[in-house]
Amino acid sequence: MFKEALQGVVDQIDGGMAGMLMDFEGIPLEMYARDEDFFDVEVVGAEASVLVKAIQRATEMLEAGTTQEVSFTSESLVTLIRVLDETYFIALTLRPDANFGKARYLLRTVAPKVLAELA
Amino acid sequence: MFKEALQGVVDQIDGGMAGMLMDFEGIPLEMYARDEDFFDVEVVGAEASVLVKAIQRATEMLEAGTTQEVSFTSESLVTLIRVLDETYFIALTLRPDANFGKARYLLRTVAPKVLAELA
Repeated sequence: MFKEALQGVVDQIDGGMAGMLMDFEGIPLEMYARDEDFFDVEVVGAEASVLVKAIQRATEMLEAGTTQEVSFTSESLVTLIRVLDETYFIALTLRPDANFGKARYLLRTVAPKVLAELA
Repeated sequence: MFKEALQGVVDQIDGGMAGMLMDFEGIPLEMYARDEDFFDVEVVGAEASVLVKAIQRATEMLEAGTTQEVSFTSESLVTLIRVLDETYFIALTLRPDANFGKARYLLRTVAPKVLAELA
């Protein structure tokens, strides 16, 4: 079910590369990649979980409430992260020319469905 | 000049709160806030620079090239960061209901102008 949810998001985005459901230890619960060879999910997972934890600490410092979404764009990759709860998040990787707005929308839409299944 | 550039971006966005030109030590070079009282620029700067450095390390690990943009969204605040070069970045804070796409566009547009003045 999780894989289908991830695939549904990734495949709907031109330039969508991979989607991962992960816990904050960086351990993937499920993942889907269009090009399986491309993606080192363990590296992405470890990095993403460290970053999200750092950002959660930062938003607490700023008293800005719970972190909901994180994104970072580099020359060859866009990573979009949606926090589901205190344990899980979804990370989506896109090509830089992908439709970022659509990716955010799809991720926001699928998040409560995935969370409901996790419960 | 920097202040005008920051103000030009912040004031064009409904829900734009503040803009900061900073170095990666977290020291603000210039800042503009619509509501001066609201914003603790030193806290934001310190947090933002730590985060951007963490993200730069992560993108290096992922071999994804130079970090260009970072955003994080929490319940009460959106922070959008544009990396200018190895020394400076611009951080923009918005309300969660602000036009994120427009903010990204304006920040991308103003970045080379600010960078040209820094040189």
